[in-house]
Amino acid sequence: MAHALRLARRGLGNVWPNPAVGCVLIRDGRVVGRGWTQPGGRPHAERMALDQAGELARGATAYVTLEPCAHHGKTPPCALGLVQSGVARVVSAFTDPDPRVAGRGHAILREAGIEVREGVMEAEARELQAGFLSRITRGRPFVTLKLASSFDGRIATASGESQWITGPAARAHVHAMRAIHDAIMVGGGTARADLPSLNVRGFNLPSQPVRVVVSSQPLPELPAEGPDFGPLWQVSSEPLVMLKELAERGLTRVFCEGGGVLAAALLQARLVDQVIGYTAGLVLGADGRASVGTLNLSHLTDAPRFDLVETRRIGPDLFHRWRLTSPNPAMA
Amino acid sequence: MAHALRLARRGLGNVWPNPAVGCVLIRDGRVVGRGWTQPGGRPHAERMALDQAGELARGATAYVTLEPCAHHGKTPPCALGLVQSGVARVVSAFTDPDPRVAGRGHAILREAGIEVREGVMEAEARELQAGFLSRITRGRPFVTLKLASSFDGRIATASGESQWITGPAARAHVHAMRAIHDAIMVGGGTARADLPSLNVRGFNLPSQPVRVVVSSQPLPELPAEGPDFGPLWQVSSEPLVMLKELAERGLTRVFCEGGGVLAAALLQARLVDQVIGYTAGLVLGADGRASVGTLNLSHLTDAPRFDLVETRRIGPDLFHRWRLTSPNPAMA
Repeated sequence: MAHALRLARRGLGNVWPNPAVGCVLIRDGRVVGRGWTQPGGRPHAERMALDQAGELARGATAYVTLEPCAHHGKTPPCALGLVQSGVARVVSAFTDPDPRVAGRGHAILREAGIEVREGVMEAEARELQAGFLSRITRGRPFVTLKLASSFDGRIATASGESQWITGPAARAHVHAMRAIHDAIMVGGGTARADLPSLNVRGFNLPSQPVRVVVSSQPLPELPAEGPDFGPLWQVSSEPLVMLKELAERGLTRVFCEGGGVLAAALLQARLVDQVIGYTAGLVLGADGRASVGTLNLSHLTDAPRFDLVETRRIGPDLFHRWRLTSPNPAMA
Repeated sequence: MAHALRLARRGLGNVWPNPAVGCVLIRDGRVVGRGWTQPGGRPHAERMALDQAGELARGATAYVTLEPCAHHGKTPPCALGLVQSGVARVVSAFTDPDPRVAGRGHAILREAGIEVREGVMEAEARELQAGFLSRITRGRPFVTLKLASSFDGRIATASGESQWITGPAARAHVHAMRAIHDAIMVGGGTARADLPSLNVRGFNLPSQPVRVVVSSQPLPELPAEGPDFGPLWQVSSEPLVMLKELAERGLTRVFCEGGGVLAAALLQARLVDQVIGYTAGLVLGADGRASVGTLNLSHLTDAPRFDLVETRRIGPDLFHRWRLTSPNPAMA
């Protein structure tokens, strides 16, 4: 299952609105097929692994990071494909909450006499599919907020100089983070002030993430969609409505890169699921530009709180990742 | 030498103006004496270890974290003590830059026929004695700045609420940090607004650190010196002059806990040697109180820069420690 999860990870950012699933087929202790959700969302992981295994799938055990699908969409359901391939056993991480599946995939397998074990590495699999789960169970994408700042929390000098606060290794890491999200989101102020490229550089991607600009004002001239730039979406509703719109359009994982006003609005509405910080070893002072805008908190207890997940060094900078405290139980 | 350094560490914060030295005597592969600079600065580490070893010192090897002293002060010089004890060999970390020693300790030993090896674990020993070295070579104490803030760099809500941003484990860690410094320093604004206790709680200390308040204004009623509170010193010159005064009065290691105005003044003057950050998993927004005051930087390249030394979790909080980039070569 750990192997299947590593394969699943390859789909993050390029399979929306589908989940990024991994599948490994093992027969007699040997891997006979490996699959992961392909760019655009299909073929599914199981289909890819079964095609690779061919006749060797007969009697094999399939490890899948999510319950196999049960509905006829553009392709026949994977549960049926597993039955037809003759696999003897299916080990899955958890039941797909998508109402079109919701246990029916596992049921199809069991009815065909296949041994099914559920719940293997479920926590890890749920973490990996947090975007898909958020869209299905909350109707909004999973939101990661990036803060790259000086160690006193500043993103630019008073004069607006911000290139570069963090080092090349942290900036490359940001591109890797962008690559595993469906969309990169910024506020209108940032879009107008920085004309950000909002694309992934340095990685060979099947497609560029969507560029989302949250603004009701006219946007500046940004590069047209093409091989180097994803679609450009302008949205402008209040935060939750805006995120629901994005989920309806299929997004499961959104990477917000500021600015401070948008970050504050999302934090205030408790719509930031994860914060990743890149802290550089310099001080810009109180006259520098703040990473997060005004929150109007009267008490410390009103502040949005996050749990530290990891911290390490990236180049000369400090990397830290936090998850929103007591998230939606459906996501836990 | 690693053992001697661990012993030396016990003296940090309670031996100023003397260096915190450690000494281990080994004979035939066994430890026959261990010493460290005693509270108040004497007996010295070598004296304590020699007294412990007695006759067993004869023919032993002495490991000392600093060149043994050569000057007659309130006690006879340690170099002479080592000679008289009959040790065969002395291994020392580095030459004491104090002009009263400056190689004469090593010379006394060599003249007496003792084999001397210098430079063992020199970098670690210099790091440990950074405060003593700073006072001797730069005429000012080594300054550590503590910043305990939300992850957007705020130390209080707009209304001034600050208790508690960090958790109990981080706060206990702050007391452990206070304990290994000679003095705790705050600005006048902080002293007036928070009436801080500026003492060490939860540790059994030989003496409390000096309380230094940087202010030209009258101070509020703070607790009188006693078993639970160190001496209270009010100083008010500009940063470098003020630090030089503190060094003249004997301080080697100063722990600055803010507020933002004093932190900014020290940072701007490049007088902060080390920053330790405790970052809590909450966001207070741009209207929260800044950890560092105004710096008036026109360019990013003007910002004081620090190198990340370590990062780890302390309770729910993120701990990170940074050292000023390209420090005084005499300190390297």
